[in-house]
Amino acid sequence: MSLPPPTAIDVRSAAVRITGFTHRTPVLTSRGLNEATGLECHLKCDNFQRSGSFKLRGATNFIQQIPDEEKSRGVVAFSSGNHAQAVAYASRVAGIKATIIMPSDAPKTKLFNTRDMGANVITYDRLTENREAIGNQISLDSGATLIPPYDHPWTIAGQGTLALELLEEVPDLDALLVCLGGGGLLAGCALIAKEINPAIRIFGVEPALANDYALSLKAGKPVRVDNSPTIADGLRTPQPGVITFPIIQHLVEDVLLVSEEEIYAAMRYSLTRLKIVAEPSGVVCIAAAMAGKVAAGIKRVGIVVSGGNMDLDLIATLA
Amino acid sequence: MSLPPPTAIDVRSAAVRITGFTHRTPVLTSRGLNEATGLECHLKCDNFQRSGSFKLRGATNFIQQIPDEEKSRGVVAFSSGNHAQAVAYASRVAGIKATIIMPSDAPKTKLFNTRDMGANVITYDRLTENREAIGNQISLDSGATLIPPYDHPWTIAGQGTLALELLEEVPDLDALLVCLGGGGLLAGCALIAKEINPAIRIFGVEPALANDYALSLKAGKPVRVDNSPTIADGLRTPQPGVITFPIIQHLVEDVLLVSEEEIYAAMRYSLTRLKIVAEPSGVVCIAAAMAGKVAAGIKRVGIVVSGGNMDLDLIATLA
Repeated sequence: MSLPPPTAIDVRSAAVRITGFTHRTPVLTSRGLNEATGLECHLKCDNFQRSGSFKLRGATNFIQQIPDEEKSRGVVAFSSGNHAQAVAYASRVAGIKATIIMPSDAPKTKLFNTRDMGANVITYDRLTENREAIGNQISLDSGATLIPPYDHPWTIAGQGTLALELLEEVPDLDALLVCLGGGGLLAGCALIAKEINPAIRIFGVEPALANDYALSLKAGKPVRVDNSPTIADGLRTPQPGVITFPIIQHLVEDVLLVSEEEIYAAMRYSLTRLKIVAEPSGVVCIAAAMAGKVAAGIKRVGIVVSGGNMDLDLIATLA
Repeated sequence: MSLPPPTAIDVRSAAVRITGFTHRTPVLTSRGLNEATGLECHLKCDNFQRSGSFKLRGATNFIQQIPDEEKSRGVVAFSSGNHAQAVAYASRVAGIKATIIMPSDAPKTKLFNTRDMGANVITYDRLTENREAIGNQISLDSGATLIPPYDHPWTIAGQGTLALELLEEVPDLDALLVCLGGGGLLAGCALIAKEINPAIRIFGVEPALANDYALSLKAGKPVRVDNSPTIADGLRTPQPGVITFPIIQHLVEDVLLVSEEEIYAAMRYSLTRLKIVAEPSGVVCIAAAMAGKVAAGIKRVGIVVSGGNMDLDLIATLA
């Protein structure tokens, strides 16, 4: 498709389109976290989103725009997990058949839930097989519509609704921290946040072990980081998207890097103090705030908690 | 003290008194839970309360009313855990010295957090020693004010603020489910809920293994159930309170009993689907709803999630 890049208006349209299909998630505050970080933290909790993550926003916005005559041929998606569950969920709601390509080592919860929502799951070996190629082949063979996990204007616009909701509730934020894998969420959030408040400072947060965006922004062009071993499985995307990268280059001030230890500490803090279940990819912004990586001069900060799909096995390792 | 029994007006006064010291916790909904129960569930999430449970409401309401000349002698409390943390937290905020008597087998998180808040913790053997006696002796020796965990008008009125907040947000509930240990939370919630809406149906929920209230209501007088082995450590209180029992007799329709298996299932569901950390005592109302124990004719139901102080070790056993 040759759609133009998404704009803030597309995010506002997406917000109308997804209403009733997605949950308007709460914004939580914690005195303990404020004391620990020296900030005023506003947590946008999309770990409470239906399907367990923000990915439902983009998937729903996409599926709602597929022409009726193409819907009958179904949809296909490749994903480390949350996009998979989101597409499965949104497809079931829309009465569309979904085929999902997932890595065989994806968290059990994500594999189980995706199948449980009625999707046809095909697993692949993350280290030796190419999920894009598998997805494209299925799409060619069956005529199913491929739903890209981040690098598409409809996906990006859908994800941006998260920041729109957050800023409707807390308009006067100094800064916004958004977790950064392929960049769909960050690009969408940056578009709408900068339209609402041009002075807001926007930061991506990625694991130091999956620092493809940090390297790419420094290089001024996409750089690959393959097969990252970070625990944050949702942020292992090897390189920036073609559509997301220039938006992020233009609107995002910096990318903050967090270590694996900082991610673990944020997970433990979320469970034991905040009492929320947030997956490794979901806590990187909390981790950045707790590790003192937010720039001086910032006080009121929006923190995205992007997802909560986490195996109990993993929680057990934190005990 | 010879205070009169608490009334709905005392709950409203408590709400004013605790404002700024406690968190107005969110009311969450979940489509998945509604589908699983056939109800419209409104979860009042006091697992997000400061100190990790609703107990801060009663402790704060109590401490705010101690005469200034008595505050300097400190406070003392006995508790299986959440009341301990609440008194420790509220005392620190008020600048008062707190001594807390806790069972030696209380969850590590609760012991750690209570000490971490600056309280002096004294442990006792739950099976052989009498915590009331220890508390009374300390109070006599030091002149510290004893803060009862449930059987006091100030404690009861404070706990009732939970239902007041819930009904301000969702006024037209058919029923309210409240977890039931000593009965402070249920009594306080029943007083205010019945004042706001005399037609609301009110139910206590207790573990079948700690069914002292169910037995007492049937007998028409307090019955003891000692040393209950239920996993819901906050609900092991052996018998109804002198003040709480008549209020509950008068205003509560029935007590619903949940099995240990139902409590475990509700904990697992809370973690994996609702993405909230709720302790065993905190999920008994979710358990009752999931197990189909809510009476026919009830649709919109308020469900109390009373606390979230839970060892990661325990979560590990659910994996």
